[in-house]
Amino acid sequence: MTIQRYEHPLNEKTRTYLRIESLLRQAQHCATFSDPQHYQVLFRSLFDLLDIFEQIQLKPELLKDLDKLKLTYSNWLNVPGVDQQRLQGLLSEIALVHKEVLGAQRFGTKLKEDSFLSSIRQRFNLPGGACCFDLPALHYWLHQPLEKRMADAQQWLKSLAPLNHALQQWLNLTRSSAQFKAQIARNGFFQSDADEANILRLHFAHDYGVYPMVSGHKNRFAIKFMHFDTGQASTQDIEFELAICS
Amino acid sequence: MTIQRYEHPLNEKTRTYLRIESLLRQAQHCATFSDPQHYQVLFRSLFDLLDIFEQIQLKPELLKDLDKLKLTYSNWLNVPGVDQQRLQGLLSEIALVHKEVLGAQRFGTKLKEDSFLSSIRQRFNLPGGACCFDLPALHYWLHQPLEKRMADAQQWLKSLAPLNHALQQWLNLTRSSAQFKAQIARNGFFQSDADEANILRLHFAHDYGVYPMVSGHKNRFAIKFMHFDTGQASTQDIEFELAICS
Repeated sequence: MTIQRYEHPLNEKTRTYLRIESLLRQAQHCATFSDPQHYQVLFRSLFDLLDIFEQIQLKPELLKDLDKLKLTYSNWLNVPGVDQQRLQGLLSEIALVHKEVLGAQRFGTKLKEDSFLSSIRQRFNLPGGACCFDLPALHYWLHQPLEKRMADAQQWLKSLAPLNHALQQWLNLTRSSAQFKAQIARNGFFQSDADEANILRLHFAHDYGVYPMVSGHKNRFAIKFMHFDTGQASTQDIEFELAICS
Repeated sequence: MTIQRYEHPLNEKTRTYLRIESLLRQAQHCATFSDPQHYQVLFRSLFDLLDIFEQIQLKPELLKDLDKLKLTYSNWLNVPGVDQQRLQGLLSEIALVHKEVLGAQRFGTKLKEDSFLSSIRQRFNLPGGACCFDLPALHYWLHQPLEKRMADAQQWLKSLAPLNHALQQWLNLTRSSAQFKAQIARNGFFQSDADEANILRLHFAHDYGVYPMVSGHKNRFAIKFMHFDTGQASTQDIEFELAICS
């Protein structure tokens, strides 16, 4: 049975975090150049990341969230029944990624300073703009040996490692902050309190033929299941699993 | 020895044709979904094509070019020494793709009418906008069996077959209209008459470490070779092969 797995951010910051995670994954996957079209996704991901970095001050936001994590987990220190060794390990990891982010330049600075990336960034987004006549430098770059291209890609991604590590730490801890619970969307509809949560996670059977439309903010949310084939709201009772992650 | 192969269009129409050819090739390659990121390139290519179709009236332009080809090749009918059987075959092929284009809807109509494509087109171009929460319908579609996804992709591409066939016919004949000739760019620079040509084709050794910057229009063109590493104009003598295709 195919399971559909959805995540929905309940605030703008988490929305950005999830988009960045997705872009970093795409870029990492395509940095192998095992497919002739990987370069398209790699460069698009890097340029999308730069667009995001230019729009928001990500670094202070992430540092604040790491501080919050530290505070939350520090409250469990010396509490009986809590695995203190594991807790200490976790706090060390948080401290480590915090230090990495603090010591990093503004995210994307290295990419913006890269003369090759800068030279192709603007035209890359034209419709069909990756042709050799639009971007002859890119065409040259693509003719280089695989090792050279992979080394370049690794260098670009390495400059984003502090962001990647800290973001993964935050997202992992946020995702594991709540257990999945069985729920039913009566007539395809479900609503509940969000209690200042960050991410909703949903699992349900693909066989229902539906996808979820979620609306919500930090205090309350609603899920409406839509039929893929008709585009109409479902009136079925739909069983799903839900985790409300803070 | 790696050979760099560049093409440069000498007018706006040919520029569009080459971009469309490149986008169609990308889309066809990615319609196999053999890589998890292929969907990114497939949808981007389809939406880029729609952007182009909305900007220009491609169909009458292409029909006019096919008429011109027909006229050009008709002049060789009954000329002694010309392979009349091959010529007749070519004229039949041109007539066939002309008929296909004439009978086709405005290019992209089927794609624009597709409710799924329409529902994801706008958000797909947001930075990182292909996340499941931005495009839950896309996320559902990606969970479908490979056969279903491939069938959808084939149907989308099939609607562009008349364009593809005619464009390939025109580009093949244009590309084969001229032989490559050995040339030298003294101090990295070359200029010549274009004689109402459509495409310049250049071959040269990757080892020079350069890429060409071409400026030109239908009557005259100039090629300046640039060093990839420095971004500066080359002052080397560079041997290359050039075909000026009408």
